[in-house]
Amino acid sequence: MAQMTGTFTFSRPLHELTASEVGPLLRQGRLSVEEYACALIARVEDREPHIRAWAFFDPNSILASARKLDGLPPNQRGPLHGLAVGLKDIIDTEDMPTEHNCPIYRDKVPASDAPLVTMLRSAGALIFGKTSTTQLGCSSHGPPTNNPHNDQRTPGGSSTGSAAAVADMHVPLAIGAQTAGSVIRPASYCGVVGLKPTWNAVSREGVRIYSITLDTVGFFARSVDDIALLADIYGLHDDTQPPCGELGLSTARFALVRSPVWHLAEPATVAALEAASAALEAAGAHIELLEVSELDPVPQWHTTVMTAEARTSLLADYGAHQHNLDDFVRSQCQAGQHISRSAYLAAYDGIAAARPTIDALLEKYTAIITPSSTGEAPLLDGMRSTGSPAFNAIWSALRVPVVNLPGLTGPNGMPVGISLVAPRYHDQHLLKVARSVACVLKPRRG
Amino acid sequence: MAQMTGTFTFSRPLHELTASEVGPLLRQGRLSVEEYACALIARVEDREPHIRAWAFFDPNSILASARKLDGLPPNQRGPLHGLAVGLKDIIDTEDMPTEHNCPIYRDKVPASDAPLVTMLRSAGALIFGKTSTTQLGCSSHGPPTNNPHNDQRTPGGSSTGSAAAVADMHVPLAIGAQTAGSVIRPASYCGVVGLKPTWNAVSREGVRIYSITLDTVGFFARSVDDIALLADIYGLHDDTQPPCGELGLSTARFALVRSPVWHLAEPATVAALEAASAALEAAGAHIELLEVSELDPVPQWHTTVMTAEARTSLLADYGAHQHNLDDFVRSQCQAGQHISRSAYLAAYDGIAAARPTIDALLEKYTAIITPSSTGEAPLLDGMRSTGSPAFNAIWSALRVPVVNLPGLTGPNGMPVGISLVAPRYHDQHLLKVARSVACVLKPRRG
Repeated sequence: MAQMTGTFTFSRPLHELTASEVGPLLRQGRLSVEEYACALIARVEDREPHIRAWAFFDPNSILASARKLDGLPPNQRGPLHGLAVGLKDIIDTEDMPTEHNCPIYRDKVPASDAPLVTMLRSAGALIFGKTSTTQLGCSSHGPPTNNPHNDQRTPGGSSTGSAAAVADMHVPLAIGAQTAGSVIRPASYCGVVGLKPTWNAVSREGVRIYSITLDTVGFFARSVDDIALLADIYGLHDDTQPPCGELGLSTARFALVRSPVWHLAEPATVAALEAASAALEAAGAHIELLEVSELDPVPQWHTTVMTAEARTSLLADYGAHQHNLDDFVRSQCQAGQHISRSAYLAAYDGIAAARPTIDALLEKYTAIITPSSTGEAPLLDGMRSTGSPAFNAIWSALRVPVVNLPGLTGPNGMPVGISLVAPRYHDQHLLKVARSVACVLKPRRG
Repeated sequence: MAQMTGTFTFSRPLHELTASEVGPLLRQGRLSVEEYACALIARVEDREPHIRAWAFFDPNSILASARKLDGLPPNQRGPLHGLAVGLKDIIDTEDMPTEHNCPIYRDKVPASDAPLVTMLRSAGALIFGKTSTTQLGCSSHGPPTNNPHNDQRTPGGSSTGSAAAVADMHVPLAIGAQTAGSVIRPASYCGVVGLKPTWNAVSREGVRIYSITLDTVGFFARSVDDIALLADIYGLHDDTQPPCGELGLSTARFALVRSPVWHLAEPATVAALEAASAALEAAGAHIELLEVSELDPVPQWHTTVMTAEARTSLLADYGAHQHNLDDFVRSQCQAGQHISRSAYLAAYDGIAAARPTIDALLEKYTAIITPSSTGEAPLLDGMRSTGSPAFNAIWSALRVPVVNLPGLTGPNGMPVGISLVAPRYHDQHLLKVARSVACVLKPRRG
């Protein structure tokens, strides 16, 4: 499938290249941004009728932006020069509508880019469009997007289109957000790499609020290296820079944490965790099963905090435009009204007290391994439900960075990811670990 | 100074009336919203050259909105029908620019109202304009606003214009936001009532982020009853509804908390606290001096958290438009880069652990009394510095509700407020206490 361009021949179609593969070609001018954009647009036009990953997609404006980037002299090209990025449609963009999959916001174009978009543009990224989301990023009823691996199954949510667009190779990079499991779960279902960084390491200004103490911006890509590109432009840094060079797994020590929701793990997830453990042990890593009783109350605390805070976020739209909200969103707002202030505070303070305890525990290990989802992506139901975030919500509450790694598949041939978790603000360390772990999972892909 | 209107004669000029006084007249149609708006516009046009409280003020659009409200049949009139509200210019409005006192955002008109604005409009409020702010709500260098009590002195910040516009009787109500002391301090300096509710009791969506875990929406008015109108439309509620009727001070028990920054109290503040205590004791209240050693580390923790989180909020504008940021904002972003992740987490977790401890302590008292500012509003300097938030930052960190009550004056004839503080989500209780305390402070006004 060699593909000719004006200046270069590629052994694979351009849309298949990761950001790390195509980035140097774009920066060096061996491939024009316009040419690259054309290849991706063709991919979207071919695939979008089946996938429906995009809430807003305008080839003309993409091409105009691409030509502008091509006009930049080499010394002004940023680290993401010409790389196409999809943005979940709850993220403000000044040149595209931001509709939150909600009629209240139809056709509304924000006055300013969210800061996270400003940083992408400053780095030279090509903003490719807005990806589909559940309503206001908080419904569990999906948009019309299908899983690229099987169009009868959900891609997950709420960052539905971001995961699907990356998995289906429309773009190499996409941005989403997670409150319970909205980054790691769709990454698991769609078989891509996902990072939920430490909470508030990336500004959430201009990103719709669901639960202010839980919402976290996250990234999707098809390689850990690509995620690292985003981590760098957003200035994610640990107190101690991880040493250069690859992390050797033979000296690594992992804890397997089944977490208090282990009873929800389906055979596919049990098998995935076993396979990942076996692969790591085969690579020389030490793995131990770790019971963490401090995690037991966290799932309920998470639900209480999320629901109570959703009331604050949704109250204005609920009051003024209730008929324009979907059933799930309405029910969230109603449920929030029935949580007492003392129950909310007990949950919030409980989580807050658990964070340093869990950090201290995690620090003893290279990383922990834990499920990314209850199993393979569920079959689409009438509500297009986006699956259970049970295995993710715990880590969202604790604000620790989580990477989903693909590579394993379930009995229906669907991807099943595994999560690596590190203490807060160990994002770069976690990416380094993820690079090594991804290598041992790779042979099992497909 | 009687004033004639088409339907009614008032003993005082309309602009002097509080929201609670003028509200029933507007709702009952004894005064048209247009007539009321005209009176306030005349007041602004008379005073604004001296005060400069407004970042955006357009009489034509105010009058158009007023006429629309007048067209509503009585049964569709909301609890704030026709009441004029000023909005700090870091709050998104879909029909007015939101400029954050920053050239980057000049003339930018957001696509949607912030939810807090939606709720005001749903309640029938007349959005009167945007009030001046320090840059991005985070600089300590003031906008060109003067203190209505003395134009050589600062009105405080960062909710500068909101405090000044209410104090100077341009509007009866205004909305601001506080990260360190940006509501309570200007309320103290300008001699108005201010409420910083419990953190996140009001949605901060569409309000510029400075420090995500500290920023709190707050209210300004000239009476506690007016503040209560806002508290009601925003759905502030305690778990236990305070009993009807006035709170008798004879059975009340107050704790006087000087706080760890007491050494910063100027004679005016020392005297104000003594005078308030004497007035409460004369009304039969029990007052005891309370030392709270748990508060000792909070001021430093607050600074660390605010500065570290400011880095996240400011990084995009700092990277892309540094030349458009003022010195203070630039220095905040740079300072944030030098705070280690572990120092930030220690401060954040320290505050989080202190919150339930302090709540439990506060619950033993009717309320605590503590200073609202280091003293009277300082004289304006070359940077138009907005004064010290030292006495407020502690309570911002702890997320507890705080009311500033005016009524006392310092040696230069300037207002000096006192703060009442209650545990988290005891906002309605606090307002009830504030009503009674305001009565005993009133005779000393002026």
